[in-house]
Amino acid sequence: FFINGKHYTIPMAIEESSVVAAASKAAKFWLDRGGFKAEVISTTKIGQVHFMYEGHVELLKSYFDFIKPKLISDTKSITKNMEKRGGGILDIELIDKTSSLNNYYQLHASFETQDAMGANFINSCLEQFAKTFKDNANGFENFNSDDLEIVMSILSNYVPNCLVRAEVSCKVSELNESENISPEDFANKFLQAIQIAEVEPYRAVTHNKGIMNGIDAVVLATGNDFRAVEAGVHAYATKNGRYTSLTHASVEDGVFKFWMEIPLALGTVGGLTNLHPLVKLSLELLGKPSAKELMQIVAVAGLAQNFAALRSLTTTGIQQGHMKMHLMNILNQYNANKQEKKVLVEHFKTNVVTHNAVVDAIEKLRQ
Amino acid sequence: FFINGKHYTIPMAIEESSVVAAASKAAKFWLDRGGFKAEVISTTKIGQVHFMYEGHVELLKSYFDFIKPKLISDTKSITKNMEKRGGGILDIELIDKTSSLNNYYQLHASFETQDAMGANFINSCLEQFAKTFKDNANGFENFNSDDLEIVMSILSNYVPNCLVRAEVSCKVSELNESENISPEDFANKFLQAIQIAEVEPYRAVTHNKGIMNGIDAVVLATGNDFRAVEAGVHAYATKNGRYTSLTHASVEDGVFKFWMEIPLALGTVGGLTNLHPLVKLSLELLGKPSAKELMQIVAVAGLAQNFAALRSLTTTGIQQGHMKMHLMNILNQYNANKQEKKVLVEHFKTNVVTHNAVVDAIEKLRQ
Repeated sequence: FFINGKHYTIPMAIEESSVVAAASKAAKFWLDRGGFKAEVISTTKIGQVHFMYEGHVELLKSYFDFIKPKLISDTKSITKNMEKRGGGILDIELIDKTSSLNNYYQLHASFETQDAMGANFINSCLEQFAKTFKDNANGFENFNSDDLEIVMSILSNYVPNCLVRAEVSCKVSELNESENISPEDFANKFLQAIQIAEVEPYRAVTHNKGIMNGIDAVVLATGNDFRAVEAGVHAYATKNGRYTSLTHASVEDGVFKFWMEIPLALGTVGGLTNLHPLVKLSLELLGKPSAKELMQIVAVAGLAQNFAALRSLTTTGIQQGHMKMHLMNILNQYNANKQEKKVLVEHFKTNVVTHNAVVDAIEKLRQ
Repeated sequence: FFINGKHYTIPMAIEESSVVAAASKAAKFWLDRGGFKAEVISTTKIGQVHFMYEGHVELLKSYFDFIKPKLISDTKSITKNMEKRGGGILDIELIDKTSSLNNYYQLHASFETQDAMGANFINSCLEQFAKTFKDNANGFENFNSDDLEIVMSILSNYVPNCLVRAEVSCKVSELNESENISPEDFANKFLQAIQIAEVEPYRAVTHNKGIMNGIDAVVLATGNDFRAVEAGVHAYATKNGRYTSLTHASVEDGVFKFWMEIPLALGTVGGLTNLHPLVKLSLELLGKPSAKELMQIVAVAGLAQNFAALRSLTTTGIQQGHMKMHLMNILNQYNANKQEKKVLVEHFKTNVVTHNAVVDAIEKLRQ
């Protein structure tokens, strides 16, 4: 992969071989067309203390303003090292959610966690906020701490302000790889496929799933939490009230552009990053990136995967490439030898690959 | 796990040890309270041929009615074996999507794929539909096949009609495990935590992420496609236009009930199921379940995970248990010996576990 003028070998961990093949093919295609551009837009993470309060809201606001400095100072032992690295607590707000649920309020806190994914750091801070908030309530004016019930303290995996953008672009005339379709037709069909994913949820879910094939493969290889990434990305896909495509494309003045903005909370220190030998190897392979650099790499892997998927879908169909990869899985499953593989790969160049067709062909060959 | 009156040992593959610990704890809790109930509600899967058509819609409808039997008969070589197993194509509909996008229509097909996840089967059928649909267009009355452009043919990972329900219930008085909280208070706080996840997207995303911790661990262990499951589940969480909690809870007539309905497209044959040695072992450990049985098992793992997470969050906080597990990760990372581990585990029973605190304690101990 050629990203922001630098070459990368990106490790992927996934059970579906065609994902790696497709990503590699897209990487090669864009290598000759200026490569990928990526930029981190923001890196703020969110955590909340959820609580119930039955008293007067003005009194709660006064108490919050009073206690806010202590909320922060009481976490000093937790935040000390993070602050040395340039991170820490950015802000804490009191949020009134009583229009959604009776008596429901939040301490809504924002964090910068630098190269750590930050879940443990954020949760530890939040639990201390909750303790400080509850323990000091009785000392304040007419405040009755019995009116205040902490429900729970937890980070959010919805991180719309921890955002990265990845993009490719080239002249339409450079979309000239295949002899079977003109560059203009290719661009048109690609744009149609994107438009369909923008308007049709049944397609959008699968379209985004394809993006996540690329993203999760790198997230797993680098020891990050793929459930956190999945939850954040799919929720972001529905941020305007309807589930829609994460990627977009345009053709303007003869230039084809294809891009995506997605939220990614990733770490390159802490967690498993220094524990799992293959995670260590993966991070070394990437040149020991910062979390911001990893955000860019992961987003590019997702964009590449989507480009490859849409290219296959709108030209040859997805099954040709997919079943070509899967053919080898089936042949391996039936312990086909080198000679058998050669004969059967040749046979399936002109025949439809299905599991049963492959099994039939192996049996016939061995008779 | 005790599910529908049967005992299971559920394999989980995940990097986060506290997920396995939490699921096990929830399994044990419900073992003494009647266990888990689960049922498959439906198993229909969806695939679509997306196309553009510039002619008269009535002519398109006539052509569709004419060609529909041939769409099905032309896939016979693909569907033959699936039909032997009781599956196949359920229906094909023509859908007019021109109100969303000019000239956009679909062949919207539904499938039953029995014990296979069915992606290859469905995609192969769809690509044949597209070929038959395009190739025969010119032979029909005034139909001009130039008016018809196939964009792509692909299954949908949005499977709201491939649905499973998991549930637990017991008397409120039986929620009596902890000395620190009464059964009634426990039930109330649990319900509050669910209500918060129902109304607050920042919390709902993390709440559902916790469910997926349990689900993906089993999906991965059994060689299924976790990106497909993730995409389908999170899209389902937003089916009413707002991202919300997948689990729900109630207390009625002194009975606590906690349940979830989620879409899961899983397979126990095909794909990797017979290729990866640990996947084979996992399926043997589960007693070689059918896909329907696996849907139930996976849903239960998700529900158990959510129960454990909410119990921790609303009582001790999530960090106590999580960092207890993570403490061992850090100690292993620094090659702590048995004696050092003993001392440090004891030390951190009364001290807050953070990465830095553990490193400091190891260094101090070794001086």
